[in-house]
Amino acid sequence: MTRNAVCLLSGGLDSCVTLFLAKQEGYTLYALTFDYGQVHKRELQNVKKIGEAAGVKNHVLFTVDLHRFGGSSLVDKNITIPKNKRLDEIGNQIPPTYVPARNTVFLSLALAYAETIPAEAIFIGAHATDYSGYPDCRPEYFDAYQKMANQATRAAVEGHPIQIKTPILSLSKAEIIKKGVEVNAPLHLTWSCYQGGKKACGQCDSCLLRLKGFQDMGTPDPIQYHRYPSWYMVKK
Amino acid sequence: MTRNAVCLLSGGLDSCVTLFLAKQEGYTLYALTFDYGQVHKRELQNVKKIGEAAGVKNHVLFTVDLHRFGGSSLVDKNITIPKNKRLDEIGNQIPPTYVPARNTVFLSLALAYAETIPAEAIFIGAHATDYSGYPDCRPEYFDAYQKMANQATRAAVEGHPIQIKTPILSLSKAEIIKKGVEVNAPLHLTWSCYQGGKKACGQCDSCLLRLKGFQDMGTPDPIQYHRYPSWYMVKK
Repeated sequence: MTRNAVCLLSGGLDSCVTLFLAKQEGYTLYALTFDYGQVHKRELQNVKKIGEAAGVKNHVLFTVDLHRFGGSSLVDKNITIPKNKRLDEIGNQIPPTYVPARNTVFLSLALAYAETIPAEAIFIGAHATDYSGYPDCRPEYFDAYQKMANQATRAAVEGHPIQIKTPILSLSKAEIIKKGVEVNAPLHLTWSCYQGGKKACGQCDSCLLRLKGFQDMGTPDPIQYHRYPSWYMVKK
Repeated sequence: MTRNAVCLLSGGLDSCVTLFLAKQEGYTLYALTFDYGQVHKRELQNVKKIGEAAGVKNHVLFTVDLHRFGGSSLVDKNITIPKNKRLDEIGNQIPPTYVPARNTVFLSLALAYAETIPAEAIFIGAHATDYSGYPDCRPEYFDAYQKMANQATRAAVEGHPIQIKTPILSLSKAEIIKKGVEVNAPLHLTWSCYQGGKKACGQCDSCLLRLKGFQDMGTPDPIQYHRYPSWYMVKK
């Protein structure tokens, strides 16, 4: 019997690895990508290619304009994205890049999609270790979301609640990259930088965490950067 | 200090009464209405007027195209809306008008809006008594949603979780109408019918439950119907 899964796919490294982990588990894949009013669409540029590389059965690009509500530097040009932080400063507090209730909105739309297919699981590439202080990336949050989903759908009422899967939740960035290499995830197609442009900035929290992950792995990041932080030693 | 609330406002009777109950509690009101790919937009026709009648501070009409996922007669023209059921048949099973995960999607977008304003409460006009078999209208569902919301937002992490308010959840339709009359809700502007058109059909589950409510109240429904069920005795 076919086992279907909806996979949230942003175009970033984490969701790309997660998609390929779902593929490895034998699921038939339905990718779901959000255009949510991001200031830059750079991470969407290669997202179709990532889906194709995984052999997804369907890929929905869904527009949900969180910009209408404002409240984050990722959807509001008037808020500045922090850069060049020390690594130990990242994750101490909720940063301005936090988008209100983003994962809750994304998971809820995935739940609607999953119930319609029907799919038995939803994969999301959140991780708690480097979570940069986002409340909706913590294990307690996903536990509570699962309990809510167990009450929310026709499938749940009929005894088949849709499972929220977070396979990289407790991994470090280096471990995620290692997994990605193991399952042949096309990391060269991924984009993590909070800024747009042809090359990643190498200065925002997301670039710093990604580069630290590759450094810890001892292998160079295949994508291009404008500049590298002084501590980065594994340049191409 | 101003107490803000986001109120989900569909244009139907239940959400209209709920909006006016929030107003009575002294909240500054932020209405949120969804264009979710409904087959007909009839209930949206007067929704702005309902908001204005309540004196809302802002009213967001938000597009979220659940039609992309399909799976319900409310968003898919190819599924037939049941009609002329006996009243005791309504609510026994999940009907084809069920939209997968709709309340979860709506509440999650309301959560994003509430966190941005910021608002301390979200009002939703769900009711369990006449819930027509929708899993996401049951008290267990809202309890689980609240627990999830308590983990989901910056406000929650900082000790101020946003409260999900369901003031009509345990009321019958007649009691909801009675409340609405008490708080001067403009029931003549509301639309409950699952079909479009100038007049309500008087045959779908939603019309039948509404007319039963007015009959139990002993007062005529102020809106117009194509035809009334044989048991309806309080015509205008």
